Amino acid sequence: MRETTTPYTLHNRSSECRARRGHVTTRQGTIQTPVFMPVGTQATVKAVTPENLYEMNAEIILGNTYHLFIRPGHELIERFGGLHKFMNWKGSILTDSGGFQIFSLKDLAKITEEGASFRSHVDGAKLFLSPEIAVQVQQSLGSDIMMCLDTCIPYPATKDEVIKSTALTTRWAQRCREAHTSREQLLFGIVQGGMHEELRKMHIEQLMEIGFDGYAIGGLSVGEEPQMMYDIAEATTPHMPENYARYLMGVGTPQDLVEGVWRGIDMFDCVMPTRNARNGMLFTSNGRLVIKNSRYRDDMRPLDENCSCYTCRNYSRAYLRHLYASREILSYHLNTIHNLHYYLTLMADIRKAIEEDNFAAFRNDFYGRLQGE
Amino acid sequence: MRETTTPYTLHNRSSECRARRGHVTTRQGTIQTPVFMPVGTQATVKAVTPENLYEMNAEIILGNTYHLFIRPGHELIERFGGLHKFMNWKGSILTDSGGFQIFSLKDLAKITEEGASFRSHVDGAKLFLSPEIAVQVQQSLGSDIMMCLDTCIPYPATKDEVIKSTALTTRWAQRCREAHTSREQLLFGIVQGGMHEELRKMHIEQLMEIGFDGYAIGGLSVGEEPQMMYDIAEATTPHMPENYARYLMGVGTPQDLVEGVWRGIDMFDCVMPTRNARNGMLFTSNGRLVIKNSRYRDDMRPLDENCSCYTCRNYSRAYLRHLYASREILSYHLNTIHNLHYYLTLMADIRKAIEEDNFAAFRNDFYGRLQGE
Ligand SMILES: [Zn+2]
Ligand SMILES: [Zn+2]
Repeated sequence: MRETTTPYTLHNRSSECRARRGHVTTRQGTIQTPVFMPVGTQATVKAVTPENLYEMNAEIILGNTYHLFIRPGHELIERFGGLHKFMNWKGSILTDSGGFQIFSLKDLAKITEEGASFRSHVDGAKLFLSPEIAVQVQQSLGSDIMMCLDTCIPYPATKDEVIKSTALTTRWAQRCREAHTSREQLLFGIVQGGMHEELRKMHIEQLMEIGFDGYAIGGLSVGEEPQMMYDIAEATTPHMPENYARYLMGVGTPQDLVEGVWRGIDMFDCVMPTRNARNGMLFTSNGRLVIKNSRYRDDMRPLDENCSCYTCRNYSRAYLRHLYASREILSYHLNTIHNLHYYLTLMADIRKAIEEDNFAAFRNDFYGRLQGE
Repeated sequence: MRETTTPYTLHNRSSECRARRGHVTTRQGTIQTPVFMPVGTQATVKAVTPENLYEMNAEIILGNTYHLFIRPGHELIERFGGLHKFMNWKGSILTDSGGFQIFSLKDLAKITEEGASFRSHVDGAKLFLSPEIAVQVQQSLGSDIMMCLDTCIPYPATKDEVIKSTALTTRWAQRCREAHTSREQLLFGIVQGGMHEELRKMHIEQLMEIGFDGYAIGGLSVGEEPQMMYDIAEATTPHMPENYARYLMGVGTPQDLVEGVWRGIDMFDCVMPTRNARNGMLFTSNGRLVIKNSRYRDDMRPLDENCSCYTCRNYSRAYLRHLYASREILSYHLNTIHNLHYYLTLMADIRKAIEEDNFAAFRNDFYGRLQGE
């Protein structure tokens, strides 16, 4: 295993489950874990400003390499001194490798040993991404945590397909590691292996042999049932190195976060809070609330009596319903602030519960509130 | 003339033109004039928060009675304690009467002596607005400055059409005054008379006879050339009472504001800064800037080197171009902040120039900068 100085520091463990409290140190700052990372696909977390994110104590956001590679281009962002300066974000940034988006293009993408050929969804231009290019692009973007280019396995897939794809991911991970010259930018490996515990375990060992600054679980939240995702996380985390951060990619619902932390996950990202906000689906401590519902027409209460976000401090459900019905831009803004605040507060509460070693009680209470929905 | 206590206080006059510096006192607070009022049609100034408006020292915004009447309805807003509380706005609010929007419906509206029958643009419901209802609705909304229901004259129109329409506006103005029971809410009359100076003068006298808390010039900015609008304002303001605020409705470009103030106008409103912002057209001290232009692709400068708004303090033209090209909601937000800041700063600079009695030099300098465009 190649030498790395781990950027992960453990504070304490739950005595009740695998949950752990810690922090990750990047060149940009410190990230308290477990953490949820808001998604800022196109150099902006949709519908909010950096200041809105600071107010909810966001320490890290995610950027999408595929989108930034296509528009405005990583060279332009590099000339501006990196993504932080370009978008005016003072916290840390994790960028994905672009692989997930390219594999989502399906027929538009062609995968070879060398890399992925694909066409831009914006202008149809022919493009190519290899492990080396994925790392170079992320180095140009100046992200604090970079991800290896991995292959995405369709679900369901035969075990043979999973084995072949996972082996390619390992070879690409090796090439990413070799292309990684800007060592103060962290590089995380991505564990594949489909829904097979033994393949997950084998893949972790291969990635640890190469040596990364952190380890992500990829290939989940691709259409499988939540319980299967929990089972794979449950079966995978015991094989992951204790002294490195564990990141469950693209996950998930509030319940997924609680269950992921329970099984030893430190980092999460998902478009759900931001996307649902724009669709008028709000998360509250008592469950989900669909703001267009006519029952809120005269409702003077805030979205969530237990929420201290800007939206809940200042606006009623009736007003938010009016903005949504009127398709006002302020609707997206206020809803997004609330949903992200909900997610980040949930994670802060989870961290506190782990510190106080009462995460099991916290989890019971979390489900108890949802029953009242 | 009916007794009114004028809410307008004159500070000083320009010795060079009819420009005047003063303030209007509403039950909600004080408004320094000349003033530009951002338009908040549907209980929100599109794409910004009240806090964004406070930061640019906005003291008054405009709400559209027609839109609020239709959605969410004035009864609902009244139950919430009025529009200020509903939308969380702590400054003053001026509401229009709804007449302009109804007349814009054209075939969908039918005008009689009694009032205007029309269909909702949202759900086609049959609705009716009379002078009495227009005042009652505005009283329910709790606006600080209400406007009389007036008739809108198509442009061009025959003199006979203008005479008939203006006479009806007078009769409606009388009925509005009689329906006006909540006297701490100010009621402004609207001067019609088309492009005819003598009709404008006659109409002002009729409105003064009834007695209002302020006087607006309506029926301009309806398709005529700017110079004709300036000429009508030029010909109208000398006949307006000195000790009341003068409001030029629906106007206009930065140049229109300068020329309106020059001719003695105190108040303006227009959707231009907000609407243009959403279309990527930005106002700067050197003229207009179309952010999608490829020349800004690599431009690290702020929109306007002379602007101190949140957008210009933190973001480059290249970033704003990227957001616009990517159709990101943050594009609308940041562009709107800049354009409104430009308008409000222009008005603050105009007020200062009048105080220092060098508005003619200010106006020359204003045009000189635009030449550099
Ligand atoms: Zn909230
Ligand atoms: Zn600016």
